[in-house]
Amino acid sequence: MRFGADYNPEQWPRDVWQEDMRLMREAGVNIVSLGIFSWALLEPRPGEWDFSWLDEVMDLLHANGIDVDLATATASPPPWLTRLHPQVLPETADGTVLSPGSRQHWRPTSPIFREYALRLTRALAERYASHPALVAWHISNELGCHNLYDYSDDAARAFRVWLQQRYGTLDALNDAWGTAFWSQHYGAWDEILPPRVAPTQRNPGQQLDFERFSSDAVRDHLRAEAEVLRAVTPDVPYTTNFMVAQNVRDIDYASWVGDVDFVSNDHYLRPGELGRDDLSFWANLTGNLAGGRPWFLMEHATSAVNWREVNPPKRPGELIRDALTHVGHGADAVCYFQWRQSRAGGERYHSGMVPHAGPSSRVFRDVVALGGELGALAPVTGSHREKARVALVFDYESWWVSGRDSHPTDALQYDVEQLEWYRALLDLGIRADVLPVGASFDDYEVVIAPMLHVVPDDLRRRLEAVVRDGRHVVTTYFSGIVDEHDRVWLGGYPGALRDLLGVSVEEFVPLLPGAPVALASGAVATTWTERIVRVGADVEVLDTYADGDLAGSPAVTRRRVGDGSAVYVSADIARAGARGVLRALAGEIEALRGDDLAADGRLEVIVRVSGGSRFVFLANRTDETVLVSAVGEALGAQGSDDAGALTIAPRSVAVLTQDAAATGAPADGAGLSATRASSSTG
Amino acid sequence: MRFGADYNPEQWPRDVWQEDMRLMREAGVNIVSLGIFSWALLEPRPGEWDFSWLDEVMDLLHANGIDVDLATATASPPPWLTRLHPQVLPETADGTVLSPGSRQHWRPTSPIFREYALRLTRALAERYASHPALVAWHISNELGCHNLYDYSDDAARAFRVWLQQRYGTLDALNDAWGTAFWSQHYGAWDEILPPRVAPTQRNPGQQLDFERFSSDAVRDHLRAEAEVLRAVTPDVPYTTNFMVAQNVRDIDYASWVGDVDFVSNDHYLRPGELGRDDLSFWANLTGNLAGGRPWFLMEHATSAVNWREVNPPKRPGELIRDALTHVGHGADAVCYFQWRQSRAGGERYHSGMVPHAGPSSRVFRDVVALGGELGALAPVTGSHREKARVALVFDYESWWVSGRDSHPTDALQYDVEQLEWYRALLDLGIRADVLPVGASFDDYEVVIAPMLHVVPDDLRRRLEAVVRDGRHVVTTYFSGIVDEHDRVWLGGYPGALRDLLGVSVEEFVPLLPGAPVALASGAVATTWTERIVRVGADVEVLDTYADGDLAGSPAVTRRRVGDGSAVYVSADIARAGARGVLRALAGEIEALRGDDLAADGRLEVIVRVSGGSRFVFLANRTDETVLVSAVGEALGAQGSDDAGALTIAPRSVAVLTQDAAATGAPADGAGLSATRASSSTG
Amino acid sequence: MRFGADYNPEQWPRDVWQEDMRLMREAGVNIVSLGIFSWALLEPRPGEWDFSWLDEVMDLLHANGIDVDLATATASPPPWLTRLHPQVLPETADGTVLSPGSRQHWRPTSPIFREYALRLTRALAERYASHPALVAWHISNELGCHNLYDYSDDAARAFRVWLQQRYGTLDALNDAWGTAFWSQHYGAWDEILPPRVAPTQRNPGQQLDFERFSSDAVRDHLRAEAEVLRAVTPDVPYTTNFMVAQNVRDIDYASWVGDVDFVSNDHYLRPGELGRDDLSFWANLTGNLAGGRPWFLMEHATSAVNWREVNPPKRPGELIRDALTHVGHGADAVCYFQWRQSRAGGERYHSGMVPHAGPSSRVFRDVVALGGELGALAPVTGSHREKARVALVFDYESWWVSGRDSHPTDALQYDVEQLEWYRALLDLGIRADVLPVGASFDDYEVVIAPMLHVVPDDLRRRLEAVVRDGRHVVTTYFSGIVDEHDRVWLGGYPGALRDLLGVSVEEFVPLLPGAPVALASGAVATTWTERIVRVGADVEVLDTYADGDLAGSPAVTRRRVGDGSAVYVSADIARAGARGVLRALAGEIEALRGDDLAADGRLEVIVRVSGGSRFVFLANRTDETVLVSAVGEALGAQGSDDAGALTIAPRSVAVLTQDAAATGAPADGAGLSATRASSSTG
Repeated sequence: MRFGADYNPEQWPRDVWQEDMRLMREAGVNIVSLGIFSWALLEPRPGEWDFSWLDEVMDLLHANGIDVDLATATASPPPWLTRLHPQVLPETADGTVLSPGSRQHWRPTSPIFREYALRLTRALAERYASHPALVAWHISNELGCHNLYDYSDDAARAFRVWLQQRYGTLDALNDAWGTAFWSQHYGAWDEILPPRVAPTQRNPGQQLDFERFSSDAVRDHLRAEAEVLRAVTPDVPYTTNFMVAQNVRDIDYASWVGDVDFVSNDHYLRPGELGRDDLSFWANLTGNLAGGRPWFLMEHATSAVNWREVNPPKRPGELIRDALTHVGHGADAVCYFQWRQSRAGGERYHSGMVPHAGPSSRVFRDVVALGGELGALAPVTGSHREKARVALVFDYESWWVSGRDSHPTDALQYDVEQLEWYRALLDLGIRADVLPVGASFDDYEVVIAPMLHVVPDDLRRRLEAVVRDGRHVVTTYFSGIVDEHDRVWLGGYPGALRDLLGVSVEEFVPLLPGAPVALASGAVATTWTERIVRVGADVEVLDTYADGDLAGSPAVTRRRVGDGSAVYVSADIARAGARGVLRALAGEIEALRGDDLAADGRLEVIVRVSGGSRFVFLANRTDETVLVSAVGEALGAQGSDDAGALTIAPRSVAVLTQDAAATGAPADGAGLSATRASSSTG
Repeated sequence: MRFGADYNPEQWPRDVWQEDMRLMREAGVNIVSLGIFSWALLEPRPGEWDFSWLDEVMDLLHANGIDVDLATATASPPPWLTRLHPQVLPETADGTVLSPGSRQHWRPTSPIFREYALRLTRALAERYASHPALVAWHISNELGCHNLYDYSDDAARAFRVWLQQRYGTLDALNDAWGTAFWSQHYGAWDEILPPRVAPTQRNPGQQLDFERFSSDAVRDHLRAEAEVLRAVTPDVPYTTNFMVAQNVRDIDYASWVGDVDFVSNDHYLRPGELGRDDLSFWANLTGNLAGGRPWFLMEHATSAVNWREVNPPKRPGELIRDALTHVGHGADAVCYFQWRQSRAGGERYHSGMVPHAGPSSRVFRDVVALGGELGALAPVTGSHREKARVALVFDYESWWVSGRDSHPTDALQYDVEQLEWYRALLDLGIRADVLPVGASFDDYEVVIAPMLHVVPDDLRRRLEAVVRDGRHVVTTYFSGIVDEHDRVWLGGYPGALRDLLGVSVEEFVPLLPGAPVALASGAVATTWTERIVRVGADVEVLDTYADGDLAGSPAVTRRRVGDGSAVYVSADIARAGARGVLRALAGEIEALRGDDLAADGRLEVIVRVSGGSRFVFLANRTDETVLVSAVGEALGAQGSDDAGALTIAPRSVAVLTQDAAATGAPADGAGLSATRASSSTG
Repeated sequence: MRFGADYNPEQWPRDVWQEDMRLMREAGVNIVSLGIFSWALLEPRPGEWDFSWLDEVMDLLHANGIDVDLATATASPPPWLTRLHPQVLPETADGTVLSPGSRQHWRPTSPIFREYALRLTRALAERYASHPALVAWHISNELGCHNLYDYSDDAARAFRVWLQQRYGTLDALNDAWGTAFWSQHYGAWDEILPPRVAPTQRNPGQQLDFERFSSDAVRDHLRAEAEVLRAVTPDVPYTTNFMVAQNVRDIDYASWVGDVDFVSNDHYLRPGELGRDDLSFWANLTGNLAGGRPWFLMEHATSAVNWREVNPPKRPGELIRDALTHVGHGADAVCYFQWRQSRAGGERYHSGMVPHAGPSSRVFRDVVALGGELGALAPVTGSHREKARVALVFDYESWWVSGRDSHPTDALQYDVEQLEWYRALLDLGIRADVLPVGASFDDYEVVIAPMLHVVPDDLRRRLEAVVRDGRHVVTTYFSGIVDEHDRVWLGGYPGALRDLLGVSVEEFVPLLPGAPVALASGAVATTWTERIVRVGADVEVLDTYADGDLAGSPAVTRRRVGDGSAVYVSADIARAGARGVLRALAGEIEALRGDDLAADGRLEVIVRVSGGSRFVFLANRTDETVLVSAVGEALGAQGSDDAGALTIAPRSVAVLTQDAAATGAPADGAGLSATRASSSTG
């Protein structure tokens, strides 16, 4: 099990480096990411290199038995570069040029920046190709975190090329974007611009394609650096740290998976009550983006971050709980930003493995304890996620489009709707895979797809196949509404899913603030209801509206097709309402009955499997101790077996080993280069 | 009675056109506005015309008996135009250039844009001058909706010319703007700029004149297109769709009325409880802008719009209720944006006459029913509004100036104050005309002018004449404060109205949030009170402050002058407070006693009159059925006479015919060209 | 005692000037500030002067016995200047150019602007050098009020020069700013830019230095004008009006004091309950910036201002109360913006000495009464502040840095924390000096330094000396955290003060909104708590946390060192909590026992002293009458002695004279040129 951090020794004098080595050994650190923000020191003047200090650090790490995930160091260009070439600076939608002085101040589509970045990548690759500490490449860093949307003329040129490749002809583009509206018909490619600020709402097709283009443009940078690395060091795997998380909406990581040798991810805990479940949701998705194979937790925090409005520290136990929850969802590496909390700079209040207070601190003691736990979990390494029977379908494009302006309401939040259903599943002890929409639905008995707004023809067919096969689909309001160009499916909502669901909706009935609507079951909608005007003969009404102009009309329906069924929830009934629907369905659908191990939802049950072994992670979701029957051998510190009963402390995770004879999980597993060769979930 | 919609066939394939004709006939549609956003298709390249598809649509409509209000198609320039001439793009106050890609991305003062737009106007006029479907011209569309305020250099040049015409000399301008303040004295015309963003608050005179200039600059575009049309098709009337509505503050439509052959308007229902009364208010004002003559409802919505934060659909009955309320206030045409709800583009979630769900839908059934109702209302066509005895004075400039920055409080809302008083009048069953301030007060027994902030000398004299004639003026806080240059009248507030009202106010006392002040009557002020320090011997105190530092001092006063009187309400006492004041005055002023037909305010009573007939519209303001004595013959579906009692369903409008012997209303009426020749309300 | 206002006769016709003279004499006005915004009239075209009208006004004032504080008139350049030289216009962080049309639209670092401004200064100085009305120069006006932060290329150039002077070498700058972070290492001075908008958070060192530079750049303008004045009129003292107030955070006035001949200040009352105490706080600080010597209240308001969201007028009594509170804190001049309320321009709703209503008004009557009061206070003139035994330490840089982004919470408000402690002191009747951090702590028995965030080494030493001397330090959360470059002191919080306080904090625990935490004493923290993990053997725990994860751990501590002690308050316990801490300490620390004259905090006691006399100001903080024993002879209208009891009306101030034998205060005092020669508090 990999354990480590971003390591930024250039921020510290050399005597601190020696202490770092000692403390890393004490904590069990075995890998660091190095050089992420070192460009200005590595290339102090254009074309002049200074690798001496990095040589020294690499040797020192190697001498201490610590491997290196070496950065290409291109994330943040040095001051001289943007002074020499101000035209690499990104521009916002209103034409503001973003200045150097923070980080990532470069246009993803700038040919000039690309040239400098690849030259540095090549220089580093050639220098360290055969260094014994090098085990992986870290391409750039959090690509697109701040510079995803660039509206410059470089972006405009690249956008046009991208559109030409996508559409071939202007006629196809005009049709896709519906440019007959508002006199937007394009007569020449050069007329097309990024969606810069305009007098009023922009063309939705243009917006959606610019979002796709922007995600792809950053991926192109990833590919360009990867190409250099593959040429120079073909045997060293590379990755770039994804940001699969609630606060990063705009990158379609499902389409990036094939471009890295192994998936790695950054995730930061959300403060407050929903933080743990939110972490589980995104870790779960990351695991399924990686096709169930192990992945690399590249960054998370030992305690507080510095970039939210309020940044509370982690509560006792959470440091280890969070790490192990990621491991449960497939991580074979647990790394932090960063090793030593900075003294200066924009992230000086972001926690590290060694805090400002130094090693004599709770944080560092927990780090050391975690190092021990991870050592005990060595058998887990290389195991895969055990596929669940229930899938929760996640679609980046539905996230993008459902939140667009000029909609029935601005209150829709795709990520919230997803999390409400995920938490309802956890509450009921139902294990589910958060599945990228492009992955196969074949092995799932129940496919839950909340707010699946964008439904092209092939997705419609895939969902219909689930039901035809005798399995089950559950979807919610504002699903099935538009095609891949954000064009509305006609004939009545929910558009593409109207036949599957057997209902027809004439009008959306979004709710004004402070005017909730109750359902007969007691569930409550706060932002959205719908007027269902027709249900098919094969459709059962599971719940009705109890309030307002819709009183008595259907709210939740179920169409039966042979053994299969399709359930429609037309309102935002939230976690409590979702629990009600799932409970009602569980009577017939065995896959929706909770796992006894979940202890009535107080524990999350996560399972990894490898050859003969099954690893069961029991994560305590509560602030109370939970006792369950032991069903295997405890691996870590938690859950020491006490006369057949397992005691799981508040905010902690127990790991058990079971015999996995019943599962068909592969034993190949892990390493740092699983993904590129063999997976494509996108 | 005209019935129809914006028709955008270019968004649909030809087979849909055939269905459109069938459905239009089914609904009774007899007019459409065509070509509004067709420039990019009509002129695909500079100077190259393609009228073929439009010819086909015009012929098809004519063959189906549907007339055409043909657009000049200049509302949204095609992509090639702004690529060729980026200098037509508008600029915001901070210098941001607004991009193409939505609509109306042109500077009203751009000579280049003007040239292209007039060339297109001429081409269309010449092409369709003698087409039998053509009954009117639709100049541009919602002029100034998004491009009213342009701060570009074109705007600066035009602003200077406008100022030279207004002031003649720089001395006059310096005096009007008070440029002795903050060293702003202008020594040359070229020094004057639009009020672009500055370090702190701008000169108020400059702001007001820039608002006037901007409203006039857009009107100049209207005039320029009109001139072309008058030259080519002198017999075809033209209009442009006004936006007389709560969300369009900044165009002085009173000054535009003389520039169209007939007034047309767009209005969209505000969601929630005040929506209906708000609609009535603006329809009432539109009718009075048109001088009481019929006008054309060019756009409203069959159900939801797409541009508010939350866009609920219309409730049952509202589609017909809203249309008939407009007709009551003088509309002889009921049209929608748009015929068929778009599949793509920025307004795809804006309702249409044919919704996404298709013709088999509540919306289309209501549309067909409305078509029938409008047919039954044919006798109403051409009738005028019957003048009320009470006027509610509305002043665009008071709206602009009272909401300026650097005021005693930012909480003042002119439109809210107006609507509070209007609703109080409706609650009491008092019929009132919402009257543009420039219209004559001569025929009104009571002139209510809430927050009449801008009072030049001539307006002061007109109000004084009302009282001297034995009639009555009611006005409220922050009235009479400034002259036409936003310069404060000295000597004590309410400035220009101090003598008329017989009170003197030393200081405004705006209220901090959450600190309301009660009056002795029980009325409550939430944002504004005043310290009245002197009242004349002829002034009666109707109400006093009961709370705070003003306790015991006058709050509402009445000065009597012979049979006339002038009432001053010094606080924002809202609808309930206004009802109290009006009820108190009704003891002496008969015009303030409610109409029995109003059923205690549950119905709005609206009256149109023509030759021998009087048409009484009874609009149910409530969600309950209302019964009243029948006082005429029912014209429409509602209010079928049942043994002398009229039953009016929730959210519906009954129309009765009465003998109009007592009224002197003219019989000439309507048509599409009433306004230009004969009216000038501005 | 000086009494007067800004006088802007150019806004009024000549007949008003005559009335002005009459009313000024009636009110007792003896000084006016003249010509502040007169540039456009004095220099109507480049290099053409028109002094005729100003000659006339100067003569008129002199003839009426009124002295003149003559402005250099450079605050707002005329329209011709920015038309000729648009490159003097400031630029915002996002590159927006600020337009002329308000005021102060010039870059502090523009060489072109500087040249024009100094030419005007010289012309005025030469013209009026020997005019008998001239008693002082008023340099510019509210320097930096709107143009402090300019991000233009001029600013960039000047910033680099400033940095070179500060750091000498790039190595020193790179070290201070921690540029190893995020690849920000500078290799050449020309690479450095102002902190313009960037993709994400900026370098904190760069931000802090840009704040310092901006404050200094405006001071440089002050110095440049002063140099001209000193050369031409060496005997005429000059000032510029500071804005020591809650709404002006970003100018380090402590560093400006040595650049004026006497300190003058502008202060505007905050509306609502805390207004009076807030005024006292800033007046107190102003007095201590002036080193305890008399200062000049250059601007305040007779009643409402016009630039807040809601601008209530002053309540009865407040006009005189506010003026006398300033006098108590050391003002020897009471002046207003402005003499006559403007009729036009951006400040027409800002009150004046002569309001819109004219002289027959409460405001003018109060002005006349105040003139009388000030006459009675003539003996106070020239007296100094009597030093208190308690200091409340105020640090502009801690204000700037504690509110930076990327912090543990965005909720910290330095000014609020300061005011909470100041009000707690007032509540307990403890007289304290609000002391600029650079002033000596030597004479104070208790040094209270809430949120003293920036603690360089020398400041740490000065605080340690207080305790070592047997005196007392009280400080609160987030103090001692960073050095002068905003670099965190390592080894555990509170960093530089860890040894002094004897506690060690591992993690900050900022609180989420709506989740307050109680202490055992009942005090409540709402935004901040800390995890104190170690207290020294010499440390007593005064209070503990009672709620949440910190329950039972120390919240308030006291380390004893001989007779001295150091108290740490680790949470934002606000005014009530601060009172509790101070009360607890008062048992041992006599200086923290309230003055009996304060009448349980209902009165603020302020003392000035001069030679043989002690002047005690008793300011009623309540809306009730307060009676105290008379302890001296009443000087003003308030507090007429009634059989030994002094009656102080709500919102009023009594002034008593006592014998000052016990004090060693100097008798030299006042005049208009005390500061430059003799003080340096910075």
